[in-house]
Amino acid sequence: MTMNAVLPSIYNGHSIEADLEARLLAGLDAVEAKMHDICDSDVTVLRDASRHIISAGGKRYRPRLTLLAYLACGGKKLDDVITMSAALELVHTASVVHDDINDHGVIRRGKPSVNAIWGRTFALLTGDFLFTKVYELMAPYRDLNIVLAEAAVALVEGETLQAQAVKDNRFTREVYMDIIARKTAALFKAGAILGARAANATQDVIEALSLFGYNIGLAFQVIDDILDLTTDSVTLGKTSGIDLEQGRGFAAVTDAAVEDPMEAIKRKAFSGDTIQKGKDQARILVELAIAQLDVLPNSPEKSALTNLARAVLQRDH
Amino acid sequence: MTMNAVLPSIYNGHSIEADLEARLLAGLDAVEAKMHDICDSDVTVLRDASRHIISAGGKRYRPRLTLLAYLACGGKKLDDVITMSAALELVHTASVVHDDINDHGVIRRGKPSVNAIWGRTFALLTGDFLFTKVYELMAPYRDLNIVLAEAAVALVEGETLQAQAVKDNRFTREVYMDIIARKTAALFKAGAILGARAANATQDVIEALSLFGYNIGLAFQVIDDILDLTTDSVTLGKTSGIDLEQGRGFAAVTDAAVEDPMEAIKRKAFSGDTIQKGKDQARILVELAIAQLDVLPNSPEKSALTNLARAVLQRDH
Repeated sequence: MTMNAVLPSIYNGHSIEADLEARLLAGLDAVEAKMHDICDSDVTVLRDASRHIISAGGKRYRPRLTLLAYLACGGKKLDDVITMSAALELVHTASVVHDDINDHGVIRRGKPSVNAIWGRTFALLTGDFLFTKVYELMAPYRDLNIVLAEAAVALVEGETLQAQAVKDNRFTREVYMDIIARKTAALFKAGAILGARAANATQDVIEALSLFGYNIGLAFQVIDDILDLTTDSVTLGKTSGIDLEQGRGFAAVTDAAVEDPMEAIKRKAFSGDTIQKGKDQARILVELAIAQLDVLPNSPEKSALTNLARAVLQRDH
Repeated sequence: MTMNAVLPSIYNGHSIEADLEARLLAGLDAVEAKMHDICDSDVTVLRDASRHIISAGGKRYRPRLTLLAYLACGGKKLDDVITMSAALELVHTASVVHDDINDHGVIRRGKPSVNAIWGRTFALLTGDFLFTKVYELMAPYRDLNIVLAEAAVALVEGETLQAQAVKDNRFTREVYMDIIARKTAALFKAGAILGARAANATQDVIEALSLFGYNIGLAFQVIDDILDLTTDSVTLGKTSGIDLEQGRGFAAVTDAAVEDPMEAIKRKAFSGDTIQKGKDQARILVELAIAQLDVLPNSPEKSALTNLARAVLQRDH
């Protein structure tokens, strides 16, 4: 398996120390292999559909976060966090498969969605398969297990709040922040905590890393929603504008509930005002995240974490 | 909460020692409370939809199996198996919610399905919520966790094999047995193992209980499919004939693949031959299950397990 196609560099010019980069890529390779292997099944549609969405790639921010948090907290045996990094990414992957059912998404990561190829019934079961595989992967862990379990619950709650907000035409800034905190930031936060705790970090460091993950998770989703508004499907690699059409996403945010969210969405999106505000907010969140890293001694690993946070702002897809 | 409405007696005249019955019902009460409590959420649709399907009842065979296996293996602290019994039942509940999406089922346990009340999007998310709650409930366990995780994977595989068999018009006895072994027997088997292991049973006893659970799980599903063919929706408490219409279920089984399963299904169903064969097979499976209990000393708990197995044959809904 070559990583070049699956894991494009996300650093956009930010340097990362060469030995560390090699270790990180080896770790990410192991995460890919773990996800690939755990999704084996003699029920070929589950195996094939799971591996289709896994091999379609994605930037693997979440496993990168766990691996780098572990290393930055002094962890030495990267093998110890491969399984939980794979489980973390599979929670996200399961939600993506189910999201494409509910949103009728037909492109994901530049390929046809599971839904588009195998249909709704098998896409639903593939998402379930991935959720149960997360559980299987994490079964041996005890204390760390609850961290990911609670993040998975939060993710489903966030997706549900979003569907509810669309149904009720109720998009305030508070609702938007609550949605993205649960559907995205909770999992980033869990990823950072898992890495820190696996490295036996102190409570202070764990809390700092938790906030680091949480804030870059929020920034990540704000940027994601902006990209969804401003980027065509080919570059984005997923069905574009779905969030807009369904009345959700950053541009749907106003300071008060609106009568017709579609009107507000379009006005805001075309004025450019909300997009600039969103970018400003993401930048502040990233700076807050980076400030948390003050608890850690300087190291190439800490620099790489900082660069990972900055890379969130520089995504083009 | 009164148990009479939620947990009708399943023993149909088979006696169960009065003190034991009281302990069992107290245990089942605690399982209900655990399921109710874990599904709390400020995302009210998830809370309400989860509690709707939980409070609709069902006969709680799976938790009964875990509780009785635990007691029959000498377990003394029923509190120790309440959480895992609740998790076991929630795996089943999650699959029921998703099954009703894929099958367009509108009645479940005598009430409107989650799908019928809240629609497909929220039903999908409610099933996901329940799967993640299983994971959260089981997070503290280590060795026992993998037992339920693997059963949850098998359940999803069984549901997928079934959808695939319908799509491909491919129903042989072997395919049918493979489907029900995974979608039903695997979870019954896990329930029995969990009870036995929590009671620190010997390996011989664990294996015997494992086979006990597996065989009554198979019998349970055969009888379920027969009931689906022969019972109206009101008595059955779920959309009747779905299995028939979709070309699955016991009556769809022939000894070789058929050209048009619907023809074969109807012919078999109306001839009564397959139904009698199915009942015979279920009876043999139950006798095989009961024979496994020879490893246990005689006790009221062992008698109750025997009666639980026999009750599978005497279901009317």
